[in-house]
Order: sequence, then C-alpha cells, then structure tokens
Amino acid sequence: MENRIDHLRNILRQQKTDAILISSSSNIFYLSGFNRFLVDHDGYLLVTMKRTFLITSPLYTEAVKKFTPDLRLLETTPDVWTAQHVKKIIDEDQIKILGFEEEDLRVSEFFDLQDKQISLQPVSLRSLRLEKDEKELIAIQKACNITDKVFSHILSFIKEGVSEIQLSDEMDHFAKECGAMIGFPSIVAFGMHAAVPHHMTSEEKLQRNSFILFDFGIRSDGYLSDMSRTVFFGTPSVEQKIMHEVTKKSQEEAISFLENQLKTSSSAKISGKETDNAARTVIKKANLPVYPHSLGHGVGLDVHEAPGLSHIGKDELSEGMVFTIEPGIYIPSLGGIRIEDVFTIKNGKLLQLTHSSKELIVI
Amino acid sequence: MENRIDHLRNILRQQKTDAILISSSSNIFYLSGFNRFLVDHDGYLLVTMKRTFLITSPLYTEAVKKFTPDLRLLETTPDVWTAQHVKKIIDEDQIKILGFEEEDLRVSEFFDLQDKQISLQPVSLRSLRLEKDEKELIAIQKACNITDKVFSHILSFIKEGVSEIQLSDEMDHFAKECGAMIGFPSIVAFGMHAAVPHHMTSEEKLQRNSFILFDFGIRSDGYLSDMSRTVFFGTPSVEQKIMHEVTKKSQEEAISFLENQLKTSSSAKISGKETDNAARTVIKKANLPVYPHSLGHGVGLDVHEAPGLSHIGKDELSEGMVFTIEPGIYIPSLGGIRIEDVFTIKNGKLLQLTHSSKELIVI
Repeated sequence: MENRIDHLRNILRQQKTDAILISSSSNIFYLSGFNRFLVDHDGYLLVTMKRTFLITSPLYTEAVKKFTPDLRLLETTPDVWTAQHVKKIIDEDQIKILGFEEEDLRVSEFFDLQDKQISLQPVSLRSLRLEKDEKELIAIQKACNITDKVFSHILSFIKEGVSEIQLSDEMDHFAKECGAMIGFPSIVAFGMHAAVPHHMTSEEKLQRNSFILFDFGIRSDGYLSDMSRTVFFGTPSVEQKIMHEVTKKSQEEAISFLENQLKTSSSAKISGKETDNAARTVIKKANLPVYPHSLGHGVGLDVHEAPGLSHIGKDELSEGMVFTIEPGIYIPSLGGIRIEDVFTIKNGKLLQLTHSSKELIVI
Repeated sequence: MENRIDHLRNILRQQKTDAILISSSSNIFYLSGFNRFLVDHDGYLLVTMKRTFLITSPLYTEAVKKFTPDLRLLETTPDVWTAQHVKKIIDEDQIKILGFEEEDLRVSEFFDLQDKQISLQPVSLRSLRLEKDEKELIAIQKACNITDKVFSHILSFIKEGVSEIQLSDEMDHFAKECGAMIGFPSIVAFGMHAAVPHHMTSEEKLQRNSFILFDFGIRSDGYLSDMSRTVFFGTPSVEQKIMHEVTKKSQEEAISFLENQLKTSSSAKISGKETDNAARTVIKKANLPVYPHSLGHGVGLDVHEAPGLSHIGKDELSEGMVFTIEPGIYIPSLGGIRIEDVFTIKNGKLLQLTHSSKELIVI
C-alpha cells in the first residue's frame, strides 16, 4: 500500500496539491485495503504528504481493527464530523490546497469542507490505478477464467420459453458455486432487446430465431471482468450471420492495430481513439450501423475506469493497462451483436484474458 | 405522477426555487416512473414550473419510449451535454434560481451547471416521499410479506458448520423463487460478528452456542422492506437470554409510546427523538449498553430515507409514513441482538408490516 500512497503523493505534487480527501470506495480500497463500507461515503481517506487517515463512524471501528489494523483511524461523532477532522489535520500539517475527487464528492460534502484557510482543488486520479501490478492481474485473470466458465455453463440452459431473468439468475447461482460473484447486473437480451445496448434484463421469454446477447462480469478478490457474447437460438438469416461476422472482424481489426503498434515499439503509448477508429472503420465499410458507444474501457476495481478507447477521448494504452474491446452492431429489426473481451499489455505484448469462443454459436 | 410533480413544485415554491435538476435515481423513479438506468447519474430529471424533461444518453431512448412514453426526452450528444440542455431550458422558461439535490449531485456536475445567469440553490426533498400512497403501501407490504417468508425458510438451513455466506446465498435464492429480490446486501452475523452492527457477511462457519443476527430486506415493485431477527444456535446463557428480552422490551416500549401518542391525537406529529428515547431508556435501566445507532429510519424506494428516529434528529412521525424500529444490544464477549420491524401509521393507528416472531428462537 505504501507504494500506492507514494504514487498518489506524486500525482498530488504534479497537480500542485498538498493533500487529498478520497471519497470513492474503489480508491479507498486501492490505497488502504479497507473495503468493508456498506454504503458509499460511509468513510473517507485523508492523505497528506506525511500521514494517512481513515475517517469513519465508530460502527466500522471493529472492522478497521480486524482487516486494516495499521490504518490510522479518526472516528466521527455527533459533534465531530468528517469535515472537522479534516480541518484539524489540515491545520496540523499546514495544508493550503486540499484536493478532492470532483466526480465523486457530493456538493454538500464540498460545502462542509469550504474554509477560508484552504483552497479546494479537484484532482484527477485517472492515472492512479491505470497500471495493474502482478497481484491485480492475477485477480483479474481469475475473474476472467470464471467468466468463461459461467458462459460455457449457461449455454446448456438455453431453450424455448426460458426468460432473460431465469438465465441471469442461473449465472448468479453458478458464479457462487465457483466461489465468486456476478460483478454487476448481467445483461441477458433476447431478439429486439439485444439491439438496445443498455437493455435491462426482463421477464421476456425466448422465442425461436433470436439473438441472445450476454454481457456480464465476475468480481473476484475485489477485481472485475467484463465479457459479451452473442449466440443465436434457431436459424440465423444471412443478414444476421453477416452482422456477427462483421462484429468479429471489427474486434480482430482493433486487435491487429494494437499488435502492430506494439511491434513498432514495445514501450508504445497507443491512441485509444485510433484503436476505436480501426474497429469502427470495418463496420462502416460493410455499410452497417456503427456502435453508439465507445470501443472499450478500462476494467479493474470499477467496471468502467481509465483508459477509455473512445472516438471522443484522448487516453492512451500502454504496458500494464487492462481494458475491453467491444464493438457491436445493433439493428432493431434483426437484433444486436456485441463481442467483448478483456485484454492487457504485458511485456510489450497484447494478451487476451477472456477466452470464450467468438464463433457464432447456434443453438 | 402529475400529483407528485405538483407536490414537488410546491416544495420548490416554499424553498423559493424556480426549477430543479433531480439527479438521484430514487427521486427520478418516484417523479417520472423511469427506473432503467444501469448506473446512477446516467440521466437527470429537469422540472420547471411549466415542464418536465428527462435528460439522458440515446442509449436509453428505446427504454424511455417503451416504459415512460409520455416523458419529454432530451438526448445528450458528444456536443450537447446535460448542462447545455439545462441552460437552454432555463433560458426558455426564464429561470433565475435552479435547485439541486446537494447530497446527491457531484461537485463536477455542480461546476458544469454554474452560470452567470442563474443562482444554484440546494433544495431539501426530505419531505417529498414521506407520505406513502396506497400503491406504495401495497408494494411495501408485499416486500414485508416475502421478508417473513424468507426468514421462516432460512431457519431450516441453520446447522453447525454452515457459513454466513451460505445462509445469505440461500436467502437470495429463495427470494428469487418468491418472485422478488434481496433489496440490499444481507447481514448474516454469527457470534462475535453479531456484536458489530455493520458486520459484512463472511466465510465464518457456525459454531454451537452463538447468536445469529439476520438483517435483510426485499425489493418488490421498486419498494423495500427491512427486518432484523436474532436467533440462538445451542443453549443461551442467562445473560444472553436477558439481552434478547431487554431488546424486545425496548422495541415494545417504543411501540407503546407511539400508540399512546396516537391515542391522544390521531393527527399527531410524534417526535422521532422521543420515540428513540423511550426505547433507549429501557436498555439504560437494565444497565446494558445502548445501541450506537439510531432507533430507526424511513423505508421506501431507499432503504434509509426520511423520517429518522434518532436521538440527534428532529424528524416527526405522522400519517402515511413508513419506518423501522430497531433497538439492539451489542456486547463483544456475548454477541449482539437486534430486533427490527417495519411500521406505518394508517388512519391514526400504528400498523406493523413485518410479522415474524420476536421470541428468542433457539435451534
């Protein structure tokens, strides 16, 4: 953890900040190892150049002592709230500029922290968790392995009349049997539903001649996977086969683009935007509608984190990062396809961490 | 929904605000009926004195059309973000003061909204969802009925060596069989763990002569229940029996207090603080440690909402509100007890909505 706190302090120095109040659960876990909060913002991590404190209610004191005994704890009381603890430490450590996570901190918390003696400054922590270490990669690989198992398991439950929720429930159940948990609400989308990228799994029953889109992940040791596969129940039309083939080619093109860039220089920083563009071009050339989302995103403690592989972003991909590549084609009258895998760049090579077949499975 | 929007507009007038940007998922659902966002803050509801708009990404357009076709939709694009839509409407409807939910809105969103032409003002919506209507009460009663079923079901799974997580998983599984879902992560706490009010369910295996504390809820039609029961596995000591008895009396005392207040005046507004005090006093008089949390909280679309029954709060209880009463006694060497039920006040009478036995069940 000390390395991570040092890394954070470097980011603070670069952004000319003396200290930071971390409010997001994922960053608190990453920096302190504490992940027992039942609700977001039940606690905060205050990191100055000299010291680190966890500020939380006495309801968590036992859990802190048990799981992260080395953490310095500041207990809130009805009289001494988080902001008052922060102001005391700010005073002791002579802090002038206090950083915060602007995409996570609530406005009321921001108002509480306001004080004449300090200036509050948003700090970007997008780079904090970008490079995964060996232990994190092991956790993500484990989550990906269980993801493959769950996908393989669920195929035998596909039959006429089964509902999206029944398949999703069986995935939950089997993930637990594998000693893990589904990491975020699974998308199971039949037919027309598969054409809605953000479909919410429903009571819809499976009818013949439909696509079934699965988009799900596993959480294992805190870390997530994220995979999508689209199978066909019945007999796909020529158009539907082409949709699947073009999606697959689109992903392959993004992979080739990345591999070529890495061959040129193993320490390359590769444009996420250009990678997205490589995938997008394949679909455009086939005269099919391009996916209305980005090509991919980082995965780790959060299911969506840096880097972004987006036609409107500026992130770069490099050694140690973990991210998805997930092109899709959505046509309401035919259904929708998405093929998504998790990748990392290790020793200058692109590695794929999920391994389920990408051929169109017809059931 | 129109009644609810009218109620919101009255709150806005009282707080001298011309419009509000609603960001919390529960309030968006309550006011618009739309509950398909996969992630909080994927969309916002803008309510002016004349009009109501849902602002979200085109990824949700199909879902909005399908589930809430009457909602006016403003789609975000890479060029036109939420704040820009808001500013356009503000201009059209000549809004001077824009309200927001200060405990929900992120600081970055607040910064985006800042504009010379308007003043941003926090609006308290604690009163918005306080009084439940008939349909809401039916949903909550249904959730409570399933909660009782799940508790009764899980008792037969209690045996030496079973883990907290195994019991919790079986509760998940059975809730789904009942056509519902567990509403928030269940607490299942054995022995010493039961003495930690915010214990996180673990791999701990059940040993003889321990308390087992269950604290869980069901979500049904969007609405939640919340119940705690503590059973004993083995043979309880005299002290452990007394702990349970005093907790039960403490809840009974709070119930009597409320009933007496309601007898005095059926339109009474009863102090949450005094109700908490009635329960607290029973435990103090028995020379046992008083619970380090509040006596109870509102339940509805959120598991913790207004009103609070707290020794440090000012909320009042009255007709149509739904809330828990949940005293507890926690002694690390002996374990912990909590007895929690959901109540409402209807036609001037206190009604209990969860009905599982409160006697100490010994297995």
